[in-house]
Amino acid sequence: MQEREVDVAIIGSGSAGLYAMSKVRPAGKSVVLINGGELGTTCARVGCMPSKAVIQVAEDFHRRGVFKRFGLEGEEALTLDVSEAMGYVQDLRDMFVERVISNSTDKMPEGMFIQGYTHFVAPHVLEMEDGQRIRAGKVIIATGSRPIIPESWQPFRDRIITSDEFFDLEALPKSIAIVGLGVIGLELGQSLHRLGCNVVGVDVADRIGGLTDPVVIKSAIDIIGKEFPLWLGHGAEISEGSDGKLRVTAGGNSIEVERVFASIGRSPNVEKLGLDTLGVATDDRGIPLYNANTMQVGDLPLFLAGDVTGERPLLHEAGDEGRIAGHNAASDSVMAFRRKTPLNITFCDPNIVQVGCTYASLDLDTAAVGEVQMAPVGRALIMAKNKGVIRVYADKASGRMLGAEMNCAKAENLGHLLAWAIQQEMTVGQLLQMPFYHPVIEEALQAALYDLYAKVEAKNPGPITELVPL
Amino acid sequence: MQEREVDVAIIGSGSAGLYAMSKVRPAGKSVVLINGGELGTTCARVGCMPSKAVIQVAEDFHRRGVFKRFGLEGEEALTLDVSEAMGYVQDLRDMFVERVISNSTDKMPEGMFIQGYTHFVAPHVLEMEDGQRIRAGKVIIATGSRPIIPESWQPFRDRIITSDEFFDLEALPKSIAIVGLGVIGLELGQSLHRLGCNVVGVDVADRIGGLTDPVVIKSAIDIIGKEFPLWLGHGAEISEGSDGKLRVTAGGNSIEVERVFASIGRSPNVEKLGLDTLGVATDDRGIPLYNANTMQVGDLPLFLAGDVTGERPLLHEAGDEGRIAGHNAASDSVMAFRRKTPLNITFCDPNIVQVGCTYASLDLDTAAVGEVQMAPVGRALIMAKNKGVIRVYADKASGRMLGAEMNCAKAENLGHLLAWAIQQEMTVGQLLQMPFYHPVIEEALQAALYDLYAKVEAKNPGPITELVPL
Repeated sequence: MQEREVDVAIIGSGSAGLYAMSKVRPAGKSVVLINGGELGTTCARVGCMPSKAVIQVAEDFHRRGVFKRFGLEGEEALTLDVSEAMGYVQDLRDMFVERVISNSTDKMPEGMFIQGYTHFVAPHVLEMEDGQRIRAGKVIIATGSRPIIPESWQPFRDRIITSDEFFDLEALPKSIAIVGLGVIGLELGQSLHRLGCNVVGVDVADRIGGLTDPVVIKSAIDIIGKEFPLWLGHGAEISEGSDGKLRVTAGGNSIEVERVFASIGRSPNVEKLGLDTLGVATDDRGIPLYNANTMQVGDLPLFLAGDVTGERPLLHEAGDEGRIAGHNAASDSVMAFRRKTPLNITFCDPNIVQVGCTYASLDLDTAAVGEVQMAPVGRALIMAKNKGVIRVYADKASGRMLGAEMNCAKAENLGHLLAWAIQQEMTVGQLLQMPFYHPVIEEALQAALYDLYAKVEAKNPGPITELVPL
Repeated sequence: MQEREVDVAIIGSGSAGLYAMSKVRPAGKSVVLINGGELGTTCARVGCMPSKAVIQVAEDFHRRGVFKRFGLEGEEALTLDVSEAMGYVQDLRDMFVERVISNSTDKMPEGMFIQGYTHFVAPHVLEMEDGQRIRAGKVIIATGSRPIIPESWQPFRDRIITSDEFFDLEALPKSIAIVGLGVIGLELGQSLHRLGCNVVGVDVADRIGGLTDPVVIKSAIDIIGKEFPLWLGHGAEISEGSDGKLRVTAGGNSIEVERVFASIGRSPNVEKLGLDTLGVATDDRGIPLYNANTMQVGDLPLFLAGDVTGERPLLHEAGDEGRIAGHNAASDSVMAFRRKTPLNITFCDPNIVQVGCTYASLDLDTAAVGEVQMAPVGRALIMAKNKGVIRVYADKASGRMLGAEMNCAKAENLGHLLAWAIQQEMTVGQLLQMPFYHPVIEEALQAALYDLYAKVEAKNPGPITELVPL
């Protein structure tokens, strides 16, 4: 069988793989990009993009609930044609996918892109399903991840939906249990409720949206729990119900639903790569141990990038990991890069956001915590979105910002402000010297920062906290 | 007549005066706060707060225009009860005003707050209308401003509305000409249009929203001009029309309207203060010449703060000016403070924002300009708000960010990110090293920054623009 030689092989043409290509190709290296399964990136096909479209539709429909308070009448007449709505989501999704493909794999010269699954048969040697072999100086694994469905649920697979199938639905079930209330479960669970499904949310943990701060957890559970029931603290069991329904049981609760949405996590796509032939050390999920600053696996000519690492399943992080892996795979020596300040956004309403250090990771002896409740915040009141809480963390002695957890309107935007500030190692005092306009949601953050400032030892020089003396 | 002696007298209990109090009182100085006219700050009574409430109602009603595209039916049945809507705005306004008053003047000890107009009768000596005199070591003038109505319009005053009257309306006119398309004119003009008035916008300039960048001006005029007609480049003349209407003529255009909204500017409240007795130098509007870093007038024991300066009619700037004036009035020596990076937001839809240096103030030989059109931006498409443009400016040699002008969704939030970055003297390359989540409107800014980065000479160290080598 023929064996083709390249400098670099990239496995996976999702976001991470494409970003890796963007560094390998300009370096003048010979490269192949290999992709098994569908084209178009998890993000555009079944992830961030179509979920935001569903959320937008659901939020616009849900908004009718505030119309009466300012004299906007007739909201009872509003009805949502769900199949139209899903068609709209699918059209947007298809456009985003088409954009990705037409700007990447479609444009690559003959032979640079190979469709099909591949696996290692020896160090440096990949074999396609048709037997074709590729000898690569370096390999980047960017094979992504897939939704987990527990083995015990397999008998009910025909009635279990994951994010892989959700966006292709033409109709929505009348009733659904969302099992797993992380980003995906919360975003789509709340949207399904708002689109008219009977939704129950289930999570084995006592918290939602990946939050760790007890004050924000309580607020988020209170707010979301008013929209649809949340069963927390017990794993879900599925059994056959009546009339083709599924019975979902968790702790003392039980319900029959048409469908179960499985959002309990994602599994890295590593099993079929033949990694055992490389003899690399892996963690308990089978992911090769790697350096997050170089993306290199041990000292091998092997790099990881993107969701396959199981670490930061976010487009902008996949972009960084692809760039790092691509740069290093195309270079003679391996270079380490500083990773960005963590930023996690759940686009539920109100948004749930985590920035920098989580509350759980704080040393409460040395950290200070500031807080503001959204209820009285002027602009939030005007927006009729004055729910939630912001909690901000700083080092008590130096005042350096450490992180934040929050659930509030426009937290996605506040998250950027905070992530940028934390990455620049700013203090809470320095943040208070920045302009906060009026009336904006940023003023809620400002109030939390004032509360925090009172609790740190480091104070701004000069007599006026908010201003720098000349 | 009795003469009372105090260390500091503050004239005006609006935002600037109250912030000044917050610095004078803790310093242990004796102080009086004197206020002529209504209590409650321009911001809360007739400014930022109630206008945001009107905008929110108008935007929620206007949003029905996108419902059909995703299968949300029945929007024809939505009707707005304008008197209910205005009542809602007034209730919110009253609550915000009450909050201000109950937390400030209401809580002051007997004699510290004096209601009534006052004026200088000699240096250091103020006289109230009832003849009571106050001898003050230092005086802070924070008397604010009021809407301008040209002398030639006085015969039609009964049919001219300003922001002072607007929020008390119970019904809206069927037709209105908005004369002056700055912040107030654009915000309320667009809202009135969306609430059902026939609106025409008139401005003597060829630009709107205070913009100076021709690309953003064109975009803003195109977008707003699709909602209601804009007559630009000619001053408005008013004459008597038929059936009690006013005829508004500007250039070759003429129309009859029930009301005219005057938003051509605001005049500082200085005429009746008896400033001539102090012999201070003033500008052509009668505003004493002052130092914006100390708020001091010449070397006199006299300070200005807030809208009366005619410079930065914004709450957060009034806050800074009040703090500076208050600190300096309560101190033996005068201290200078660095002012914040300029940030101006017009909360029309899409927002119009100016940050840092205006385009007009750039030296185009040494500055670079980056741009992104909003049309293809993913999240903007999903929000059905993909209109507008972002233009960002940096110093060509150093890459240091200078400013931006933009009209786009969530520009109010992007404005904060940019203002904070500019105040920290960041370069465009450093901004690209910050996290940009996906899919968010911040990615539109990111695209504009990439465009800008390509045009500046200073590049980030290391092989990957977006990442800092370790």
